[in-house]
Amino acid sequence: MITLLTWSTPNGRKPIIMLEELEVPYQVVPVNIKEGEQFRPEFLGISPNNKIPAMVDDGVEGGSLSLFESGAILTYLAERYGKLLPPSGHVRYRALQWLYWQIGGLGPMAGQLGYFAKKDDAMPKEHFTAEVQRLFKVLDSGLGSNPYLAGDEYTIADIATYTWTLAMVEHQPQAVAELVAQKPALHEWLKRVGNRPAVQRGMAWKPPA
Amino acid sequence: MITLLTWSTPNGRKPIIMLEELEVPYQVVPVNIKEGEQFRPEFLGISPNNKIPAMVDDGVEGGSLSLFESGAILTYLAERYGKLLPPSGHVRYRALQWLYWQIGGLGPMAGQLGYFAKKDDAMPKEHFTAEVQRLFKVLDSGLGSNPYLAGDEYTIADIATYTWTLAMVEHQPQAVAELVAQKPALHEWLKRVGNRPAVQRGMAWKPPA
Repeated sequence: MITLLTWSTPNGRKPIIMLEELEVPYQVVPVNIKEGEQFRPEFLGISPNNKIPAMVDDGVEGGSLSLFESGAILTYLAERYGKLLPPSGHVRYRALQWLYWQIGGLGPMAGQLGYFAKKDDAMPKEHFTAEVQRLFKVLDSGLGSNPYLAGDEYTIADIATYTWTLAMVEHQPQAVAELVAQKPALHEWLKRVGNRPAVQRGMAWKPPA
Repeated sequence: MITLLTWSTPNGRKPIIMLEELEVPYQVVPVNIKEGEQFRPEFLGISPNNKIPAMVDDGVEGGSLSLFESGAILTYLAERYGKLLPPSGHVRYRALQWLYWQIGGLGPMAGQLGYFAKKDDAMPKEHFTAEVQRLFKVLDSGLGSNPYLAGDEYTIADIATYTWTLAMVEHQPQAVAELVAQKPALHEWLKRVGNRPAVQRGMAWKPPA
C-alpha cells in the first residue's frame, strides 16, 4: 500500500492527482504544515528537508521505500505503474525537461513570490513577480501548438506544472491574470488539464477538519 | 555526437562532469551568459527558458534530441549510457530524490542568495542565507554515514549537488564556511566527490578566451 504524507498545497496535490490518474489504492496521512507537523521527528525521518509531500510504499521488493520531493515521487509512481511517462524516447525526456523546469524554476520562484508578496519590501516582490511572469511566457511558448508540455501526450510534467500555475492564477492574480488571458496556449492548457476528472479530484482534496 | 551548449557555472558544469565520467565523445558550444548569448534566437530554439546548459544528441533514433534543464540532461545521459543511475530499485529513487532536492531547493536558493548578496537590502539576503544554511544541514544529515547521497553508490545526485555546494563554499563563505567545517559528513563528501578525476576535469573546464 502506498501512503502519502501530504497537505493541500501545489506540491502536496501533485501525488494525489497522480494516484487518482493511476486509480491505485493509497492512503493519505495529512501533515498539517500550518501547525508545524512537518517538523515532527517521525515526519523528518521520512522527509529530512521538512517539506511535504513524502511517500512510503511498503509493497516493493527490497523493503519499504520512502521518498520525499514531489518530482521524485511522480517519477517513481509513473515508472512503477508504467503510465504518464514513457520508458524511453523523445516524449520521455521532453516530459522530464518540463518537470525539472517546474521543480527548479516555476515552483521555487512562485513560492518566493508568495513569501515576499506579504512583506513590506518592494524590491524582492518586483524581482519575483518579473520572474514568474517570464516563466509563464516560457510555459506558453513551450506549449506552442501542442496540447501538453511533452507534445501530444499528457504526462507527469503537466500534473506538476498545473498545480503551480493554478496557484499563481488564484493567489497572485495581480502578477499573472492578464498574462494568462493574453496567452491562448496557456489558457487552453489550463482548461484541458483542469477538466480531467483525476485532476479535479486531486484539486478538491481537503485535509480532514 | 553529443553537443553541450553550456558555460562555467554550477549548472553548466554538471553535464561536463557527467560526460567526463562516461568517457564518451562530446563537443561544447560555449554560450557566454555574460555577453547575453543565452538570448540569441538559435539558443532559445533549443532552450526557450534562456538558461544553460542545453544539449543536442544527433545520434538517437527518431531524430535529433534537444534538451534543456540540467536534471533532465543528467538523467538522459545516465539512462542512455546505463551509468550513475540504476535502472530500478531503491538506489535509483534515492538518487532522484536528492537530484530533485538539489534542482528545486539548493540550486534556486543558492542562486537567489548570489543575486541578493550583491543588493543593498538586508531582508532577502538574510532570508536566503538562512535557507542555504538550512539546506546545508539537510545535506549533511542526508549523507549521514553514507559516502554518497544515494548510499554506497556515486550517482548523478552527487554531481548535481557538488557543483552548487562548492559554489557556495567558494562564493558565499560568510554563509556556509563555518557550517561545512562543523559537519564532517558534508566536509568529507565534498573531498570524496572533488577527488574524482572526472569531477576535477569538469570543474577545471573553461570557456575559450
